[in-house]
Amino acid sequence: MKVNVMTDILQANDLLARDIRNMFHDRKIVCWNVMGSPGAGKTAMLERLVPMLPVKVAVIEGDLATSRDAERISKTGVQSAQINTNGACHLDAAMVRSALDTIELDDISLLFIENVGNLVCPSGFDLGEKGRIIVASITEGDDKPEKYPSMYKTADLVVVNKMDMQENSNFKIENFEKGLKTINPSSDIVPVSSVTGEGFDKLLGWILDRQ
Amino acid sequence: MKVNVMTDILQANDLLARDIRNMFHDRKIVCWNVMGSPGAGKTAMLERLVPMLPVKVAVIEGDLATSRDAERISKTGVQSAQINTNGACHLDAAMVRSALDTIELDDISLLFIENVGNLVCPSGFDLGEKGRIIVASITEGDDKPEKYPSMYKTADLVVVNKMDMQENSNFKIENFEKGLKTINPSSDIVPVSSVTGEGFDKLLGWILDRQ
Repeated sequence: MKVNVMTDILQANDLLARDIRNMFHDRKIVCWNVMGSPGAGKTAMLERLVPMLPVKVAVIEGDLATSRDAERISKTGVQSAQINTNGACHLDAAMVRSALDTIELDDISLLFIENVGNLVCPSGFDLGEKGRIIVASITEGDDKPEKYPSMYKTADLVVVNKMDMQENSNFKIENFEKGLKTINPSSDIVPVSSVTGEGFDKLLGWILDRQ
Repeated sequence: MKVNVMTDILQANDLLARDIRNMFHDRKIVCWNVMGSPGAGKTAMLERLVPMLPVKVAVIEGDLATSRDAERISKTGVQSAQINTNGACHLDAAMVRSALDTIELDDISLLFIENVGNLVCPSGFDLGEKGRIIVASITEGDDKPEKYPSMYKTADLVVVNKMDMQENSNFKIENFEKGLKTINPSSDIVPVSSVTGEGFDKLLGWILDRQ
């Protein structure tokens, strides 16, 4: 019975995610589900990337509590909405559907949904996105793709953030890439620093190639 | 119905956790549930702490996949066991019960259980521990206690790790402490560096005071 209940939850989520995906398709909005550990730098990456984009953007922020991330994003001048999950460990399609009601969708062609900081649970929930971007921080260590395979195997792009901290770290990008390729050979990978701006030209190109 | 099923799971876990806690009490084993984000440095902290301890120790490692952490701990010369959750986002009491069967409990008086790297889900599952230690990395940012309250409110001790990376970081320990005190006024806090050894005398003292 327990399994059936979980199956029902996932089926309901998938049905709603399909509706959201169809709506994005009709409106020509490209949507990315941005995932990663707490403190990987998801919001910092978006703060740097969003002002570089030559298309109209909105950002939905998912957190257990506080509206800090949406406040940070709103300072870039784009539309932002905050979902508080009140303890839930991931966003689901129903939460996204509610947040979309607060955004002027006619005004945008690109949407980032920043998920709850969690390298496990968000991977199981389709939000209607075109694809998934995982933000990894080099300070997390280079062994994470193999230790968190359920998340990493769903990535279209892995942004390896905080490259400015390489000097004091034993992170080796070749180890990280090797692990990622074992789990998910088709994922792209872009090293960046949201502090120095390193790698953001390549990240911008990756996004615009799919716009 | 969904709520009832979740309640049943948690009740079953709590019953088993109570049995484990009673067993630890009878054997005079002190057990700490060590939690934190992926890459916060939970294993690195234990690698440095375990050889300093004047009591017999064992470590149970929880990961979605791989046995790397147990292999790292076994190099310190103490007993270690690896639980692979096969995708589950937290340890539960049944997993711990199985892992305990592989440890010579007569030989130890201190047990660390390193949970899955996740700042959300593990907080809901009692493992029979005496208390909880959260390892936070300064590279995660100083806003995490307020953003992940369900986890931080259960901590007996927060170990703030990677203090050696302070120079390149905008982490402010006073912001972190202020947030933690808002969520959990009774938690202790010890800043450390598993690289330089800073703070490990204080951490050792905290552990031994409760032994």
